[in-house]
Amino acid sequence: LNRIKASGLKLRFCTNETQATREKFVKKLQGMGFDISVAEVTAPAPAACRILKERSLRPHLLVHNDLVPEFAEIDKANPNCVVIGDAAENFTYANLNEAFRVLIGMEKPVLISLGRGRYYKETDGLKLDVGAYMKALEYACDVQAEVVGKPAKAFFESALAEMGVPPQEAIMIGDDIVNDVGGAQRCGMRALQVRTGKYRPCDENHPHVKPDAYVNNLAEAVDVILQQL
Amino acid sequence: LNRIKASGLKLRFCTNETQATREKFVKKLQGMGFDISVAEVTAPAPAACRILKERSLRPHLLVHNDLVPEFAEIDKANPNCVVIGDAAENFTYANLNEAFRVLIGMEKPVLISLGRGRYYKETDGLKLDVGAYMKALEYACDVQAEVVGKPAKAFFESALAEMGVPPQEAIMIGDDIVNDVGGAQRCGMRALQVRTGKYRPCDENHPHVKPDAYVNNLAEAVDVILQQL
Repeated sequence: LNRIKASGLKLRFCTNETQATREKFVKKLQGMGFDISVAEVTAPAPAACRILKERSLRPHLLVHNDLVPEFAEIDKANPNCVVIGDAAENFTYANLNEAFRVLIGMEKPVLISLGRGRYYKETDGLKLDVGAYMKALEYACDVQAEVVGKPAKAFFESALAEMGVPPQEAIMIGDDIVNDVGGAQRCGMRALQVRTGKYRPCDENHPHVKPDAYVNNLAEAVDVILQQL
Repeated sequence: LNRIKASGLKLRFCTNETQATREKFVKKLQGMGFDISVAEVTAPAPAACRILKERSLRPHLLVHNDLVPEFAEIDKANPNCVVIGDAAENFTYANLNEAFRVLIGMEKPVLISLGRGRYYKETDGLKLDVGAYMKALEYACDVQAEVVGKPAKAFFESALAEMGVPPQEAIMIGDDIVNDVGGAQRCGMRALQVRTGKYRPCDENHPHVKPDAYVNNLAEAVDVILQQL
């Protein structure tokens, strides 16, 4: 990270984190020793806030308690859309029914989803991710959710706009073959897959997505990028 | 009902009820004055039990507490499939994650769903039905559920088999254009839609399903049927 910053290259951190505000997320990474600030982070909640403002949407929120502060400035009275994130313990029967009733009560239901992940792993086991609950509401209301976050094209485009860089001059580094690599490439960027984290050997035979290159870790990704300057 | 029984016609009650055992369901209808017995009811849970036995499947149950007795005779140790019904208050975050973990842990996940309803109305408002939660698990595990209950063809076929009647000699009476009328017709039966209960005027312009006739109520349905004998 320090080598990239020293080289003068522009940098954004693109995360699908929706269980915490950017402040909390950044503090965690700073605690691990990373040189990162809130202004460098592109995340689904602020992207959703931009959409809400642009279209005068007032959300009913079905999100994690720790994410609610990201929506502090948004008018939430008399909701005309539903925003769903990885609400975790907030995915109760009562809360799901409530979000459903808000949606089905609209003439044209608007559902905005902060990601489309299927599941993820925590120390106490696998958990259903926001995508599964998004599908439940989509089916019940016969609507299609608008997905904010990786791999949505608009999400990468806003990261590029924040840097002021065209896609062909940008490169994505990520461990997720579909969300990171596939999403960035569909936006016209190149993408490296790191063989750490979510990476699985079977990713190298993915039917639709092929990274521009593989690297064994983040340091090697930086080597590759700096060599080509 | 009494006139149909007196005429000598064979009769089955086909229900998608999965919040109670057939015993409880029948008691409720008897209390309303209907001449009905458990042996005359075709319901999703016993249909699922037949499938479980035939294929030596041991279910993990995500169903309503009141439905559990229907699975009393089924081996549930070391589960190799998940059976989902309208679990209502049992649709907790913890229970959904548990059912998901059982499914995703299988080499080839088997998900059996007691219906595919989107939602239904109760005195305290609309509730998400089993179909929504089925979709969540389908998406998370990348599987397709096997649906037991209306409108599944196998469900109507088992009702016909229980009566010993071929489909072309049977007629379905129901208020649900897709689950009752559409399902029965796809099985080769004729079907009347009653203009009561779930019926909505827009059903008469349904893009895919057209009943053989409309009747205003159950009594009129019986008139139509008995006239044709």
